[in-house]
Amino acid sequence: MNNEIHVESGESFSPEERATLRRIIGSRRDVRKFRSDPIPEESLWRMLEAAHAAPSVGFSQPWDFILIDSREIRQSIHDNFVAVNEREKNRVEPGQRRELYSSLKLEGILESPLNLAVTCCHAKEKEFVLGVGTMPQMISYSVCLAVQNLWLTARAEGIGVGWVSIVEPGPVKQLLGLPDHVELIAYLCIGYPQEFRSRPLLEEVGWKPREDLEKHLFRNRWGQKEKTEGF
Amino acid sequence: MNNEIHVESGESFSPEERATLRRIIGSRRDVRKFRSDPIPEESLWRMLEAAHAAPSVGFSQPWDFILIDSREIRQSIHDNFVAVNEREKNRVEPGQRRELYSSLKLEGILESPLNLAVTCCHAKEKEFVLGVGTMPQMISYSVCLAVQNLWLTARAEGIGVGWVSIVEPGPVKQLLGLPDHVELIAYLCIGYPQEFRSRPLLEEVGWKPREDLEKHLFRNRWGQKEKTEGF
Repeated sequence: MNNEIHVESGESFSPEERATLRRIIGSRRDVRKFRSDPIPEESLWRMLEAAHAAPSVGFSQPWDFILIDSREIRQSIHDNFVAVNEREKNRVEPGQRRELYSSLKLEGILESPLNLAVTCCHAKEKEFVLGVGTMPQMISYSVCLAVQNLWLTARAEGIGVGWVSIVEPGPVKQLLGLPDHVELIAYLCIGYPQEFRSRPLLEEVGWKPREDLEKHLFRNRWGQKEKTEGF
Repeated sequence: MNNEIHVESGESFSPEERATLRRIIGSRRDVRKFRSDPIPEESLWRMLEAAHAAPSVGFSQPWDFILIDSREIRQSIHDNFVAVNEREKNRVEPGQRRELYSSLKLEGILESPLNLAVTCCHAKEKEFVLGVGTMPQMISYSVCLAVQNLWLTARAEGIGVGWVSIVEPGPVKQLLGLPDHVELIAYLCIGYPQEFRSRPLLEEVGWKPREDLEKHLFRNRWGQKEKTEGF
């Protein structure tokens, strides 16, 4: 399959097309409840192509994608999730909040038709990579940008993605055979969702409110609110 | 201004809308040559709203956005870039490749009408954040997802973004008054581009080729190419 997204230079977008992007971004969710039907291979390819079209520092393209269908590997990763989640639960303050935590479904490792590990190859640091001399973390950050491209493309295809971070990277690395220089960035569950809800689950159940954007906005210095020359 | 992107649950997208997202993703570039005209406040808001609609671990929303118009701060950051870039240049193998590096324009700190620092607040790690117990890096990774939402939204608006990583985070943190617990994730230059080129600059000038997606694709274990049960 063609794995490059071809574009003309000078491409521009209408107000309706901008609104489409906004709706895709706004309706993307972290999905944990999946239907079992498989996702079409064409959709999966479009998701991977979008990831591969992400910006990467020094055009390093440091990502790899491991498609995981093995029940055995998924069962082991699920076991790891269950153990970690039990420990995590006990770190939540006892009472209502811990009960709320316990009631949350936080992954769909076994129910989703596909798991996808997105990894970052740090081997390339031995060679000169443009742009990482003072900020080596840029390599991992590039892989995160690829994940977001994939996530949005999945949403446009009607496909749900859930990022599971309640696992121990060490055992997961071993299960997936990652060499030392390869970092696990994202462990994703992928499939058609039972539904796309209108708000994030943690907002909906009252775990955490959405914050006001204004609160996160500063001018020229962190914490500074007043305008100076413009804006 | 309204700072929430409102969506209905069950939103779905047509093949044309999917193609729009694909074109936006495919035509996004790291821009270093800017026109000087300011970007409309409405466009900037839509970019920030898109960033704020990104997924974040435990709905932590750990991002902050510092709009930088101060010439003084930008000059100091540019000075830091120049010093770091000189050192970096000397790490490139002498000859043709070093000449190529020297010829590259790698930032638009002073020419772009706006700089934007995107930071990550780690203070929240003191409280219980859902999903970071075994993967604390998830906080920083969430901020990267927000940057990609912003970047794509800028592209749809016809606005260019360039991520400058050839700076020392320490001095930049000091210039922007970041507290210890706040990490610099991205230093961005923002404005209308002189052009959106059809390919990444580093690909176009022959610094690095685009890799084949197939090369980055594995099945069940890193490095494993053969299909097992499906896909």
